[in-house]
Amino acid sequence: MFPVSMEDIHHAAERIRPYANHTPVFTSQTLNKLAGASVFLKCENFQKVGAFKFRGACNTVFSLSPKEASKGVATHSSGNHAAALSLAASIREIPAHIVMPENAPKVKKQAVQNYGGQITFCENTLTAREETLSNLVEQCGATVVHPYNDYRIIAGQGTAAAELLQDVPMPDYILAPVGGGGLLSGTALSAHYLSPKTKVVGVEPAGAADAHKSFKTGTLHPSVSPKTIADGLLTSLGDKTFTCIREFVSDIVTVDEEEILGAMHFVWERMKIIIEPSSAVPVAAVLYHKIPCNDKRVGIIVSGGNVDLKSLPWL
Amino acid sequence: MFPVSMEDIHHAAERIRPYANHTPVFTSQTLNKLAGASVFLKCENFQKVGAFKFRGACNTVFSLSPKEASKGVATHSSGNHAAALSLAASIREIPAHIVMPENAPKVKKQAVQNYGGQITFCENTLTAREETLSNLVEQCGATVVHPYNDYRIIAGQGTAAAELLQDVPMPDYILAPVGGGGLLSGTALSAHYLSPKTKVVGVEPAGAADAHKSFKTGTLHPSVSPKTIADGLLTSLGDKTFTCIREFVSDIVTVDEEEILGAMHFVWERMKIIIEPSSAVPVAAVLYHKIPCNDKRVGIIVSGGNVDLKSLPWL
Repeated sequence: MFPVSMEDIHHAAERIRPYANHTPVFTSQTLNKLAGASVFLKCENFQKVGAFKFRGACNTVFSLSPKEASKGVATHSSGNHAAALSLAASIREIPAHIVMPENAPKVKKQAVQNYGGQITFCENTLTAREETLSNLVEQCGATVVHPYNDYRIIAGQGTAAAELLQDVPMPDYILAPVGGGGLLSGTALSAHYLSPKTKVVGVEPAGAADAHKSFKTGTLHPSVSPKTIADGLLTSLGDKTFTCIREFVSDIVTVDEEEILGAMHFVWERMKIIIEPSSAVPVAAVLYHKIPCNDKRVGIIVSGGNVDLKSLPWL
Repeated sequence: MFPVSMEDIHHAAERIRPYANHTPVFTSQTLNKLAGASVFLKCENFQKVGAFKFRGACNTVFSLSPKEASKGVATHSSGNHAAALSLAASIREIPAHIVMPENAPKVKKQAVQNYGGQITFCENTLTAREETLSNLVEQCGATVVHPYNDYRIIAGQGTAAAELLQDVPMPDYILAPVGGGGLLSGTALSAHYLSPKTKVVGVEPAGAADAHKSFKTGTLHPSVSPKTIADGLLTSLGDKTFTCIREFVSDIVTVDEEEILGAMHFVWERMKIIIEPSSAVPVAAVLYHKIPCNDKRVGIIVSGGNVDLKSLPWL
């Protein structure tokens, strides 16, 4: 049995309820027509910090014992997870230590600082990041919160699909993007427990298709020089997420860059909501018919909406 | 008494209910903090055709007698009103004749054609447009639907505020942008009938402040060489909308171009929804403290979300 139970997801939902948004589900007649299906977008772009990542971070921060919590949390991830962990920690009034390379984009540094995170700079190598984090934790005793390969994170991310299943009962499919696999794992577990006939399918950029390869071969393949505009999906699966995905996910399919761009532009133009390229990945799967969903009901986890409005991919 | 009654707005709401979206209300803690108020965005960017204009067009089209309807509808407006009229007509399965200058932007022509409108091209002068429309109507007997100076249009636009008042009862203020005044008139009437203590305030770009001038002087001043990025707000008030606004609107305030741009960028970046510059105009009024709304509850009609994603004003 996978060590994240229905109760764990239920408790995560209770734990984050006071702080996280129950995000809305959006639909579009035009999208339905083009997809040949009834499509339901679970809009985590409207989640706190603009991404589903707040669910897992918040669940983890509020799972800590008072003694653990008092020493704070730490990570060397620098994207949405860092912002999410910073906000969750600042709500619990504990420190969040974020290790970041000195040359990280200014916008990422600012996001972390705006949400109250404390940045420790290091050189731009994985070794430097890990060493800096390990030294920091040795000094202050903070709990390291991995962005996806952690059961509390997986349970937290699963609350998005749990909410979707409340609002849209028993869909035929739920699609989620795959990067490190935290969101896909949580989604698959929620569907398994709450709507066992629903098939969960992961969608990955063809230019970063390590999860697809791992899923198809049954062996964990790391992400090697991934190339995609979906910058949230560059990472490799972890052992925990890979185990979960192998057991509970029906399939992983891929979409190419042009399809990601087309789906992103479609959602902006026709649905008037801002989604990031990673969110467009599962939308592309229905728009370009990558799964057999004709006349089916399809939920999609729209993972986030954090984009640089000054450099849009179609410009 | 103004010739649009509570019953007229109520009937408009019933008439459009099967076809129009009951749009959601969005909030943002960051917006509230910056505004010093509780702000509720009524998101007409999520309305059919991406703008509130569908409400008035739909009400008018479905108000026609079968005999009138069979001859179709016509207009020489080429923006959101043309798209809205085309869609409403195509739902009722009657023709919509849209007179447009030959050199109109391709995107506007396409929008009208996508929604089933029939374009009649003319030269790019107001005289040519009016003559072409008048000849066309003489030939086919279509009903001309003015974009704002029409009681059925005003009643239709008023349904947006009526819905807002259902979802957010008794706000202290409702703000709406002012161009031709159809939306502001309908908003003011709905508030007058349904929530008489709510003050309705129009917001206008300083570079197109004809309604502000008309309101302050009590004399209708036409719009002369307006200059603003809020391209939906270039038109002058009509006699019907001016009469309504004088009687039922509390005030009209102005915002400058930098404030419009700042408000638009804020809503895109922080709220993850796409709004057009005209919609940012009333948001700017709370963000830059143009009305005394400290600690008040403020509804804002976000008029639409139709923008050219390839040429954003901050690029």
